[in-house]
Amino acid sequence: MPAHFGPRYIGEKTSGRYHDCTAMTVSYLTDREKLAAYLPAPFEVAEEAVVTVYYVCNKQVDWLAGHGYNMIAVNAAVVYNGEQEQLSGTYCLVIWENLTDPILVGREVQGIPKIYADIPEHSIHGGNWSCNASHFGHKIIDIAISNLEPLSAEDVAAGQQAQEGKDHPMTWRYMPAIGGFGEAAVNEPVTFPSENNFTDVWTGEGCVDWARLTWEQNPTQYHIVNALQALPVLAYLPALVTKGSTNLVLPERWTRTLR
Amino acid sequence: MPAHFGPRYIGEKTSGRYHDCTAMTVSYLTDREKLAAYLPAPFEVAEEAVVTVYYVCNKQVDWLAGHGYNMIAVNAAVVYNGEQEQLSGTYCLVIWENLTDPILVGREVQGIPKIYADIPEHSIHGGNWSCNASHFGHKIIDIAISNLEPLSAEDVAAGQQAQEGKDHPMTWRYMPAIGGFGEAAVNEPVTFPSENNFTDVWTGEGCVDWARLTWEQNPTQYHIVNALQALPVLAYLPALVTKGSTNLVLPERWTRTLR
Amino acid sequence: MPAHFGPRYIGEKTSGRYHDCTAMTVSYLTDREKLAAYLPAPFEVAEEAVVTVYYVCNKQVDWLAGHGYNMIAVNAAVVYNGEQEQLSGTYCLVIWENLTDPILVGREVQGIPKIYADIPEHSIHGGNWSCNASHFGHKIIDIAISNLEPLSAEDVAAGQQAQEGKDHPMTWRYMPAIGGFGEAAVNEPVTFPSENNFTDVWTGEGCVDWARLTWEQNPTQYHIVNALQALPVLAYLPALVTKGSTNLVLPERWTRTLR
Amino acid sequence: MPAHFGPRYIGEKTSGRYHDCTAMTVSYLTDREKLAAYLPAPFEVAEEAVVTVYYVCNKQVDWLAGHGYNMIAVNAAVVYNGEQEQLSGTYCLVIWENLTDPILVGREVQGIPKIYADIPEHSIHGGNWSCNASHFGHKIIDIAISNLEPLSAEDVAAGQQAQEGKDHPMTWRYMPAIGGFGEAAVNEPVTFPSENNFTDVWTGEGCVDWARLTWEQNPTQYHIVNALQALPVLAYLPALVTKGSTNLVLPERWTRTLR
Repeated sequence: MPAHFGPRYIGEKTSGRYHDCTAMTVSYLTDREKLAAYLPAPFEVAEEAVVTVYYVCNKQVDWLAGHGYNMIAVNAAVVYNGEQEQLSGTYCLVIWENLTDPILVGREVQGIPKIYADIPEHSIHGGNWSCNASHFGHKIIDIAISNLEPLSAEDVAAGQQAQEGKDHPMTWRYMPAIGGFGEAAVNEPVTFPSENNFTDVWTGEGCVDWARLTWEQNPTQYHIVNALQALPVLAYLPALVTKGSTNLVLPERWTRTLR
Repeated sequence: MPAHFGPRYIGEKTSGRYHDCTAMTVSYLTDREKLAAYLPAPFEVAEEAVVTVYYVCNKQVDWLAGHGYNMIAVNAAVVYNGEQEQLSGTYCLVIWENLTDPILVGREVQGIPKIYADIPEHSIHGGNWSCNASHFGHKIIDIAISNLEPLSAEDVAAGQQAQEGKDHPMTWRYMPAIGGFGEAAVNEPVTFPSENNFTDVWTGEGCVDWARLTWEQNPTQYHIVNALQALPVLAYLPALVTKGSTNLVLPERWTRTLR
Repeated sequence: MPAHFGPRYIGEKTSGRYHDCTAMTVSYLTDREKLAAYLPAPFEVAEEAVVTVYYVCNKQVDWLAGHGYNMIAVNAAVVYNGEQEQLSGTYCLVIWENLTDPILVGREVQGIPKIYADIPEHSIHGGNWSCNASHFGHKIIDIAISNLEPLSAEDVAAGQQAQEGKDHPMTWRYMPAIGGFGEAAVNEPVTFPSENNFTDVWTGEGCVDWARLTWEQNPTQYHIVNALQALPVLAYLPALVTKGSTNLVLPERWTRTLR
Repeated sequence: MPAHFGPRYIGEKTSGRYHDCTAMTVSYLTDREKLAAYLPAPFEVAEEAVVTVYYVCNKQVDWLAGHGYNMIAVNAAVVYNGEQEQLSGTYCLVIWENLTDPILVGREVQGIPKIYADIPEHSIHGGNWSCNASHFGHKIIDIAISNLEPLSAEDVAAGQQAQEGKDHPMTWRYMPAIGGFGEAAVNEPVTFPSENNFTDVWTGEGCVDWARLTWEQNPTQYHIVNALQALPVLAYLPALVTKGSTNLVLPERWTRTLR
């Protein structure tokens, strides 16, 4: 929308490519039952109850004419246990982004639960990486990674191969009825494949610090932040810093409803 | 979305009230055929081909815990000529807002074509009011009103009464199919009633200056801005500056599909 | 600076007037010795060791062509005990502003210690006023005022009269030597008179919540915030919310060096 | 300022290093007499009347704890023809930066005429680089570079060597008297050496597009922008895109007054 002016430009100047992506990824084990409370059936917590929080600084985005944006996403490790298909992968709990354009496309075309936050670009000082997100002036999360060690090209390739076929990105697409009451206009599990190519990977020690907020501080998101803050960090897994590129438009795989 | 954390807070602390709204409204006659090109059937251009551009500085918004935001909207004067109902009013061509939260609610719950722009608060100097909108650093529009004269309370009341029953706000709600291809998930004409109460009204002389943009400058909106820039200003109508409040939640009228 | 393009415009379109100022003022008693540590001689803590924190939302600023900005200032109640003159008033410890233009003029022309912060406009909800400041995404302060009661016009006039001659705004102007080493280029106590006219005054209960920050979070200001956070709040005085206008350019009083 | 809280942290965590600097540099020949009008004696236009406009995206800035900022600077090629020393180099006419902290330090410690603008990070699309600056929503400048070709390491080294001893960065430090009237507190020519190390250099074709502004649009800077817009572009020189690092604190050279 607006649809009456015709579609957004899609042509030779645009593509699904994000040519310059720098990411900080922090994963941790949490309480299985508490995590399960946020997964609609037939999604189930994976063998290990892992939450992954990752920040990405996206630059040289083709469909944005080379502009970029920053995001902080939260995934749960899940199995989709549908009637017709069973998939291993991640369930996107929420993504904060600091640009409205990809929020609208992600929500409406792909069903990804993207919302807005102020996300300054990450800072690097003395080998320590850090970033944060806020809304209405109130902090949502701090993320930090330190003690980075580079991963060899072989290890990167091995890691990517080990993930193949197991990392389906999934979530739940929901659009309300007109006016907000009655049966939802859209209500379905979806998968939204994309492809990451890493040129540099480091491992390190990461941590996240979720805020606890009131409705007055962040009236549209406090319940989301507080839910994530209440998921205990039982143990951190190795954190990652990566550089590379992403392609959101894959020739043979496309965002679709799960069966 | 995200829906898995439960709904946004709706309770005694919130309401549909915007307690402090300051607006600049500039209307002009344009070319009937060019305007008609953007109206999907069964919407038709009204007796006079009027475009209305209005900026609103919204403060003390209850559902945002008292925060506010700025918007610039563009309406066409139309008649809805449906099979079961015929309504006079306005067709919302586009609304730019500088806060993502109301953009998401407006699009998904009401079907209003809201998109993002940087919209600094209006400035007032020497009796001249002005405001503007930009995206990615490139100007979209400048709006100015000068030579203001206050309207008497009787004239304000008479004006509001004259509009009664004729000012249905309408637009076209569109949500794509999953992945963007195939039949749209939602595709329907809608009306979204609200109520304005004015405490102060001034009339004056207004003008708008639409930019002409390239895809490189504003890749997600340039076609919208250029379409509006191409609608000729044949004659300006009296401009308005208003102060007052707005209520988006009316007991007996609610956002609904047009029949 | 730059000076080689000639001075900023000063003419009939400009003045020292801020036509629309809304302020939240919270004062509290603190530890006399701790406060004294930040006052250079011959400034001394006043009879009562009062810290005043005030937020102002300035609009319709003439020298900014009608644009505005927000600020949060911190004053200490002091006596200036100079060789040639003795004055009662306030010592400006720091002012955060969300626009660089008045920061530069304030620092260089008047010697006021202004620095930058993100300061969203205040929010009002259910009779509660609140505002905050952050830098690099990290909170500096939260301010809140509630339980407001209007003050009568007589009380406002009486209050303003009681202050007459006792509220000299003062601070310390400091400019380093070229390159930062050696004797300072400017190093002197100053006073910067201005005039406030209040159209509405409410009293209420206020509170402030100062953050405690690391160098990594706010490398240019953490020592300032931590110093203010370490001043204990021994007792709050009545808080104020005011609306009115300000004039920075007074015909017979002007920013000057104290003797 | 504020000086009463003690100096900013300077210690082992900080330095003069900017570890990640990406720059777009566009130079052009202009009218010698028009350029000379902005150079205070004893500065003179160099053999060729060259204006250089350069954008820098600074990241991993040590004294900002790893944060960064963007700037757009304008230099004139000059000779300093003083009584005691004669230097070839550049005269800084103005620098816009999108962060207030380095503006304050640059102005007060070094005398560099830095002012504020909104400067989004550059975009890169299809081999075309572009960036822009605005203030109060009104465009100041657009910069674009295309048709980039990499420069060999030998050519980079040769270019840097050719510049050695000829590229003194200079400007005029000016601080007004208290209150703005009377003899200036500081008024002197200065040089502020720094060191750039380039890891990548490309040459290409660049262009700049200066806006023409009114006082109402940009009350604090319109005279600067209009002065630069009025300097004709007689011929563009090869444009540069560079990546590398910068060091502002050199052991044996320091910001100082010119003799």
